[in-house]
Amino acid sequence: MTTKQLYEQIKLKKSFLCIGLDVDLEKIPPHLLQTEDPIFEFNKAIIDATHDLCVSYKPNTAFYEAYGIKGWQSLEKTINYINENYPDIFTIADAKRGDIGNTSSMYAKAFFEDLQFDSVTVAPYMGKDSVQPFLAFEDKHTIMLALTSNEGAFDFQTLKIEGRELYKQVIETSTEWKNSHNLMYVVGATKAEYLSEIREIIPNSFLLVPGVGAQGGSLEEVCKYGMNRHVGLLINSSRGIIYASKKEDFAQAARNEAFQLQQKMKELLDENH
Amino acid sequence: MTTKQLYEQIKLKKSFLCIGLDVDLEKIPPHLLQTEDPIFEFNKAIIDATHDLCVSYKPNTAFYEAYGIKGWQSLEKTINYINENYPDIFTIADAKRGDIGNTSSMYAKAFFEDLQFDSVTVAPYMGKDSVQPFLAFEDKHTIMLALTSNEGAFDFQTLKIEGRELYKQVIETSTEWKNSHNLMYVVGATKAEYLSEIREIIPNSFLLVPGVGAQGGSLEEVCKYGMNRHVGLLINSSRGIIYASKKEDFAQAARNEAFQLQQKMKELLDENH
Repeated sequence: MTTKQLYEQIKLKKSFLCIGLDVDLEKIPPHLLQTEDPIFEFNKAIIDATHDLCVSYKPNTAFYEAYGIKGWQSLEKTINYINENYPDIFTIADAKRGDIGNTSSMYAKAFFEDLQFDSVTVAPYMGKDSVQPFLAFEDKHTIMLALTSNEGAFDFQTLKIEGRELYKQVIETSTEWKNSHNLMYVVGATKAEYLSEIREIIPNSFLLVPGVGAQGGSLEEVCKYGMNRHVGLLINSSRGIIYASKKEDFAQAARNEAFQLQQKMKELLDENH
Repeated sequence: MTTKQLYEQIKLKKSFLCIGLDVDLEKIPPHLLQTEDPIFEFNKAIIDATHDLCVSYKPNTAFYEAYGIKGWQSLEKTINYINENYPDIFTIADAKRGDIGNTSSMYAKAFFEDLQFDSVTVAPYMGKDSVQPFLAFEDKHTIMLALTSNEGAFDFQTLKIEGRELYKQVIETSTEWKNSHNLMYVVGATKAEYLSEIREIIPNSFLLVPGVGAQGGSLEEVCKYGMNRHVGLLINSSRGIIYASKKEDFAQAARNEAFQLQQKMKELLDENH
């Protein structure tokens, strides 16, 4: 999917919501545990109930790997289900990968070719040759960690290198890499005011923004500082939506939560677009 | 496995060699492609032929994920085979993971509980709460990227923060984290002279050193600057050993390469231990 197509979807659905499919067997409705593939059944129900309210789904690979081969099967079934039934959805493998060049090529193959995701998140610590193998894929997107939403973001990301924070250095350096038009960035909502400075460096890039909801970030603040003329934002919510209820009505409850976020997004889009 | 047990193995085998099991179907002997699980058959043959010459095996997860569920199955069979047949081997999941706290816990569960590895490599960019869930496991080890062996290491790792390189800051900060005695560090052999400065910060920690062989680093240099009184080094070689031959004699050829490295290590150990 191209970013232009993503923008079209945002305008069509009046939503820039991404739903994080971080499925923990201890948190899903107990009645699903009797099915053959509880993770997939959970995802399928959530996806069927919310696909018209969001433009993106983001399974975090950790939650699938934790269940071994069965988990990896659930991940494969989930991405296939989305691609077959809702091909206009922008899919994100939240994997935070990164390795030396020939190894990163294998990760790119895993997520772009084998699993057919539209995008994958990567970590920047190993530099250019760890990210470039992902960027080489046409119409696939590489979402690089810049400023994350967790407490540990302040351990290294905000340290100053010659007067400038590491995360800004990471963003600026990456804009010079080949095929950098395929880059997007993770910027946590818990630091919304930082977004205006980030927008000075990358006015046109899409930003994936976690941390709205469970982690406490404000949607209005993020839009105020981070929205650009093609919206340029994907706001992720995981636990706040998917675990809205632990009962049989969990999918409807998830829809209600997603609907509330989408309605706020619609307002913000109507104001600005 | 404790670091004390690892040191005992090093003394016993006169080796601090780690063999990287980075299996690419395009590079293994063609006759294996007709077997049901070529990756596992390849690993099994390599392991059986080299287990007395090395103290550690390190499958890089990228090479398994690239083949989807089948790849993950091969990884599971490989780690089980090592744990059942050669329990004194120190196993490393080279996964370079890292995410916010509750998500890193799922990765820790995947590699320490589900797959039963002794250790896993992690990326430091997201800071303390992304690494700490791994550190909480008793007698398991977390090998954090410090200074990697690729060209991109110079993009961010060697940038100076208040006069000091980022990788040194990463190492020093991590020593203050809870259970930091479970930390080891990745330090590339291509920058052996940096090792003496690293040893000033972490005199006692084990270092996993990639980049000897295919990537050009020197074993003697690494030992000169990096060895401590409990050796404190695991030297990794992947392609140089496992792809020594593409013919039916591949396992014997791998053994020959491993033997040459082990003999050099024996000399270096005899000189210093």
